[in-house]
Amino acid sequence: MRFLHTADWHIGKKLHGYDLLKNQEAALKEILAIAQKEQVDAIVVAGDLYDRSVPAVEAVELLNRCFYEMNLESNIPLLAISGNHDSGPRLATGSPWFSQNQFHLHTTMAQALVPVELSDVQFFLLPYFEPIEARLYFDEELTTIRAAVARVLEEMQQAFDPAKKQVLVTHFFVAGSSRTDSETTLAVGGLDSVPKDLFAPFDYVALGHLHSKNALKEEKVRYSGSLLKYSLSEMNDVKGVWLVDTEKSESIFQPLPVMQEIRSLEACFAELTDPKFYQALNRSDFWHFTLTDRAVIPNMMNQLRNIYPYILGVERVSGQASLPTTRPTRSQQKSPEKLAQTFFTEITGDALTTKQKSWLEKGLIAANEIEKRAVLCNQEN
Amino acid sequence: MRFLHTADWHIGKKLHGYDLLKNQEAALKEILAIAQKEQVDAIVVAGDLYDRSVPAVEAVELLNRCFYEMNLESNIPLLAISGNHDSGPRLATGSPWFSQNQFHLHTTMAQALVPVELSDVQFFLLPYFEPIEARLYFDEELTTIRAAVARVLEEMQQAFDPAKKQVLVTHFFVAGSSRTDSETTLAVGGLDSVPKDLFAPFDYVALGHLHSKNALKEEKVRYSGSLLKYSLSEMNDVKGVWLVDTEKSESIFQPLPVMQEIRSLEACFAELTDPKFYQALNRSDFWHFTLTDRAVIPNMMNQLRNIYPYILGVERVSGQASLPTTRPTRSQQKSPEKLAQTFFTEITGDALTTKQKSWLEKGLIAANEIEKRAVLCNQEN
Repeated sequence: MRFLHTADWHIGKKLHGYDLLKNQEAALKEILAIAQKEQVDAIVVAGDLYDRSVPAVEAVELLNRCFYEMNLESNIPLLAISGNHDSGPRLATGSPWFSQNQFHLHTTMAQALVPVELSDVQFFLLPYFEPIEARLYFDEELTTIRAAVARVLEEMQQAFDPAKKQVLVTHFFVAGSSRTDSETTLAVGGLDSVPKDLFAPFDYVALGHLHSKNALKEEKVRYSGSLLKYSLSEMNDVKGVWLVDTEKSESIFQPLPVMQEIRSLEACFAELTDPKFYQALNRSDFWHFTLTDRAVIPNMMNQLRNIYPYILGVERVSGQASLPTTRPTRSQQKSPEKLAQTFFTEITGDALTTKQKSWLEKGLIAANEIEKRAVLCNQEN
Repeated sequence: MRFLHTADWHIGKKLHGYDLLKNQEAALKEILAIAQKEQVDAIVVAGDLYDRSVPAVEAVELLNRCFYEMNLESNIPLLAISGNHDSGPRLATGSPWFSQNQFHLHTTMAQALVPVELSDVQFFLLPYFEPIEARLYFDEELTTIRAAVARVLEEMQQAFDPAKKQVLVTHFFVAGSSRTDSETTLAVGGLDSVPKDLFAPFDYVALGHLHSKNALKEEKVRYSGSLLKYSLSEMNDVKGVWLVDTEKSESIFQPLPVMQEIRSLEACFAELTDPKFYQALNRSDFWHFTLTDRAVIPNMMNQLRNIYPYILGVERVSGQASLPTTRPTRSQQKSPEKLAQTFFTEITGDALTTKQKSWLEKGLIAANEIEKRAVLCNQEN
């Protein structure tokens, strides 16, 4: 059989305060179009459908509409789980009725142990859970995610049908993966990640949680990545879905078109506000600027927002590229004037002007006076 | 056909801070038991399923379980609408799948105009809405609930099948109804109530919103009342459901057993804390006390709560029962001393003691001095 693997939709998520619902809706429509064109046998969504446990009404409306179009209108089987961003019990609303139309939305551990069978494949849909849930379910001392997932997978194997293939759908951090900035860290430390060796019994593992499809370099254990670019660090990511063929044992990545790019640019303020410069840019994208100016620019953000409506942030060039890579000699050996001059040059890349030198001198004299007085006072007391 | 009419479940509602989920669950199970015993053809729920637009997780779990048991397990058709306490879009989650199993949950005006047909009855399920929604839907100047509902009902009649009976399910304040303390006032003024004459074309109108089954004295336009007693003012209400027979054109009220009564008692503190007295009372009920004591009682609430775990409130007897029913003679003719004495006796039922009289005298002298000085100052300025 062939299925489409997606995850981390985060419906309702905002990017630096900007609403992403329209972009999310367009991407979801694209996923449905791919599923229809490729005539897949199922769409698999590996958790984090919503961005919050209590999503906004508009987010609820979008996800309801999306599921309706995929499952009831287009009659495509849906296999989904709750992620760490979802509230399992809230997301479960309606699920007993969904399953009557081949829409299996699993939010509990008990559900994960009963496979959903579609043609020759057993799907195990394991939602995100905390170790305490496994501890209560198995009545065993399971204190880490690693131990809890291992126990669950061991239990699952008792339901394996040797005549069928097995696919696991789940939502955890797999050891050895690389992160982006938009994922919520589940916990700290190696015991809260799942070693990929545990997945060996499965023919394919459809993962959610990490936002890059390249987070893990494995053939059969894959993150699909998120629906959209959800942070500046994902700027150069390609977002899309995996088309998995269980007979051929292959998965092909299908990119999604980008509605609104995230772009980063280093320029001076005069350039950014010059029509000749900015008319060549796609100003309806999300922009992050690194300003090369050093002077104070009054009303800077408002001036930039008038030209670029979606600004993710503005930084100043820090000149850190010219920082010495070796530790400087003991600073105690330098005079305060010399220290201040070196610091200024390290940060800005420039030497002090005559005027700046005169300010520094006056400032140091004043500071010296204050220190002298403080020493005197301390002696008097 | 025969159906059960209930409304105003307010799942998740608390009574003076006390959780009611267990009582609500028991009452819902009782409703299902009645529906099964009476072999009704449908259960009708006329709005306010939840108490809040974003209910707590436990409330979501209870309603999900209840609908599952009624519709999927017991296979009873369900007809429900959203009330003013519900969030229509949130409640709508899952509804397109529900309707495939004869569970019709309507949350929009457009849905209300398409009848749900069960045997020889057309059910029009009109959720609570604001006039603005009707204005947008019909593109007409509809500014009051009265005008908006009239317009909607007029439109509904175009879908009437003369060979069938028509039942309306809705959630508004009908003019001439009487209120209790636990309903949210929708709006102020007569234009925000719906005149009952508008309902004449229907064979039965299953209403929600008001919490007493006696709020309206009509044979064919009925409030079911709420699931439980939700305020002190509903203490003597009988809560239950209507069993409606459309062929016989009759509705019979079936009371629900009460899990936890609301009781009110006037007594002195010594009585309330005397084991001989309180052991005869059902202390696991909700209690409201009117204390006949006048003295300060240190740590009163904690002492009472140790005996009565569910206290709704404690009041003091105000002695107002002994207030004169006729207006007193013009108060200007009495001296301040006499006025104060009369007031004390009216409120407490007692005369002033010698000590109290001496305090009053000193107080009046002091007040007199202050007034004299104030008059002098005003003259000087």
